[in-house]
Amino acid sequence: MITTDILIIGAGPTGLFTVFEAGLLKLKCHLIDALPQAGGQCTELYPKKPIYDIPAYPEILAGDLTDKLLEQCKQFEPGFTLGERAETIEKQEDGSFIVTTNKGTEHKAPVVAIAGGLGSFEPRKPLLDNITDFEDKGVEYMIKEPEMYRNKNVVIAGGGDSALDWSIFLSDIAKSVTLIHRRNEFRGHLDSVEKVQELKNLGKINLITPAEITAINGNEKVESVEVTKKDESPILVKTDHFIPLFGLSPKLGPIANWGLEIEKNAIKVNNALDYQTNIPGIYAIGDVNTYPGKLKLILCGFHEATLMCQSAYQIINPGKRFVLKYTTVAGVNGFDGTRKEAPKAVVKAIN
Amino acid sequence: MITTDILIIGAGPTGLFTVFEAGLLKLKCHLIDALPQAGGQCTELYPKKPIYDIPAYPEILAGDLTDKLLEQCKQFEPGFTLGERAETIEKQEDGSFIVTTNKGTEHKAPVVAIAGGLGSFEPRKPLLDNITDFEDKGVEYMIKEPEMYRNKNVVIAGGGDSALDWSIFLSDIAKSVTLIHRRNEFRGHLDSVEKVQELKNLGKINLITPAEITAINGNEKVESVEVTKKDESPILVKTDHFIPLFGLSPKLGPIANWGLEIEKNAIKVNNALDYQTNIPGIYAIGDVNTYPGKLKLILCGFHEATLMCQSAYQIINPGKRFVLKYTTVAGVNGFDGTRKEAPKAVVKAIN
Ligand SMILES: Cc1cc2nc3c(=O)[nH]c(=O)nc-3n(C[C@H](O)[C@H](O)[C@H](O)COP(=O)(O)OP(=O)(O)OC[C@H]3O[C@@H](n4cnc5c(N)ncnc54)[C@H](O)[C@@H]3O)c2cc1C
Ligand SMILES: Cc1cc2nc3c(=O)[nH]c(=O)nc-3n(C[C@H](O)[C@H](O)[C@H](O)COP(=O)(O)OP(=O)(O)OC[C@H]3O[C@@H](n4cnc5c(N)ncnc54)[C@H](O)[C@@H]3O)c2cc1C
Repeated sequence: MITTDILIIGAGPTGLFTVFEAGLLKLKCHLIDALPQAGGQCTELYPKKPIYDIPAYPEILAGDLTDKLLEQCKQFEPGFTLGERAETIEKQEDGSFIVTTNKGTEHKAPVVAIAGGLGSFEPRKPLLDNITDFEDKGVEYMIKEPEMYRNKNVVIAGGGDSALDWSIFLSDIAKSVTLIHRRNEFRGHLDSVEKVQELKNLGKINLITPAEITAINGNEKVESVEVTKKDESPILVKTDHFIPLFGLSPKLGPIANWGLEIEKNAIKVNNALDYQTNIPGIYAIGDVNTYPGKLKLILCGFHEATLMCQSAYQIINPGKRFVLKYTTVAGVNGFDGTRKEAPKAVVKAIN
Repeated sequence: MITTDILIIGAGPTGLFTVFEAGLLKLKCHLIDALPQAGGQCTELYPKKPIYDIPAYPEILAGDLTDKLLEQCKQFEPGFTLGERAETIEKQEDGSFIVTTNKGTEHKAPVVAIAGGLGSFEPRKPLLDNITDFEDKGVEYMIKEPEMYRNKNVVIAGGGDSALDWSIFLSDIAKSVTLIHRRNEFRGHLDSVEKVQELKNLGKINLITPAEITAINGNEKVESVEVTKKDESPILVKTDHFIPLFGLSPKLGPIANWGLEIEKNAIKVNNALDYQTNIPGIYAIGDVNTYPGKLKLILCGFHEATLMCQSAYQIINPGKRFVLKYTTVAGVNGFDGTRKEAPKAVVKAIN
């Protein structure tokens, strides 16, 4: 059982900044995310695109924003349960909550902050009858641990940036990489498209287009896939892994059944006070919440996280008064023993 | 008469970010500030100190934050009335407001956003009977136009960073600089203290400590000041300018009499919706407002400004629907003709 002060569901920008604000109040955080990495939509959907409305950043790539947020909260040593979906929540007698993931990992905390964005990112799956039989037995919809493909035969399907970028990356590690797409045209960053063309010319990526996977075969685990080119008869490609990268799309999912008030596919909160939901102790911040005038913007999640942490502090430390101190004045004391502080002014005679 | 869409009172971080958010909605802004420069508390009180809780900036100097905000909103061409205090507001028949400064400058807009922080920065003045007679006639409490001191004799009084830094700066421009402080010890950045010591040794700054200004003399304008060292008889120092830099402190000031609901020296707003005050069309955002759970933090002002602009849009464009578009997706079209946009993905065949 993982225990913490604030259990954050969703490691997008809102969840990450919550770790920092909670840390200033000496509260520890643990984050659960269905994705294998932090950053939410920014990392999953548009890491290489610029955002122009992060305050004081005239321009920042979404991936760099995630890196900065991770750096900013690092000293507060957040825990992560990645690649797992928060599935159920149970209120305990002592007022705390136990949240369990689809893989059975249990987390306990007095406060739960749902920073789930548009929902848990779930893969779009190819329509193949027996594909679920092979999940985690050679079929993976996202790449968590690139090392597991070392010296393996890999078939990737898809026509966007993920398919392009992972084909490039794995062409260096895997024994063979076969990239399959139902068109000849790929949609992605120019660099990536050109690099795949180059690797194909060098024989480091085996390209089959326009084609589709029409069957998966194997006992226990994937042994081969059937590839069908337009107007041709199917061929069999031997492989250890089949990785369909057809994009991930967010679904509010299990959270919708936690007894929270839902409106327009989002969780209603008390925006006049602290972004708490109808269940005391459960907050909803960032894209996942709704209230009159709500804007699904990153900068709004930052504010909501900050106010929410003040309220959570009261739940976790009942009766204790917290006096807000400016970071500039009080510095930042990391849980890892680091300390940041402004250089002191000197008082010095001039003679 | 200056006319604009949103008249912003206060050019601190909140006011500056409002210009950007308004610009995304194609609304023009004009800012009034009592200080000669933008940046509010950040620039006036701690420009060289690091802030640690600006989201995605693990550390940023308050002065650099101001620079970034100015850069971010530049393309929306804000107007500025600096060094003037907004004094009165009058509602017009057409629903708009006219705001007049202490120097008589008039501004007209359908929406007023008060981003006045802790209030208008007002100088602490030395207790000298006739000092007001010499204001703008040789006595200045803040330096707006350094060039006006070229080849002039200048007396600066004070013992902090402003007195040190302006003495250093003017020692290069003025005919003579005399620095007077009632102690031998100065309080400031080590660099500044050491630089003044060096310039004093070189004879480029004339230092008199511990001493106080005990009188100002002149007809029409300042001609000399009387300087009294502890236990000594007064001496007369001829000068064109006397600049007491005893710090600026914020006072809510005239805004307190605009008929707005005030609580704890701040303006009450509707935080459940759009940060509007009790007077429709007047909003209060950033440090200057109050509501349950309010935190006087920079990041909160950013969020409040953003929501406020959406509401202001409805007042300025009644009945028009505004559809929020992500900056990443829609780009940013400056009023100066510039355009920022994300590089497009390509659709390209690989053969
Ligand atoms: C193309 C594009 C461009 C954009 N441009 C801008 C822009 O210019 N400016 C701007 O401000 N915003 C922009 N946005 C929106 C911005 O990305 C979101 O506002 C932001 O990501 C929301 O952050 P969040 O942390 O609240 O949620 P998210 O980033 O959505 O993160 C939520 C995380 O929670 C996880 N999660 C949800 N439910 C569960 C569960 N049950 N178990 C485990 N994990 C779960 C998800 O997997 C996800 O990783 C853009 C979005 C897109 C798609
Ligand atoms: C030493 C110090 C350290 C701080 N550290 C932090 C920190 O680490 N993190 C953080 O988030 N915050 C910090 N703060 C607070 C932060 O500076 C404020 O929250 C922020 O400046 C508020 O921005 P604002 O734009 O709302 O108001 P301000 O910055 O106060 O700007 C308001 C402006 O309005 C002008 N004004 C007011 N009334 C009038 C009028 N009638 N006419 C003309 N002009 C007027 C004022 O002159 C002023 O320039 C710190 C503050 C101080 C003093």
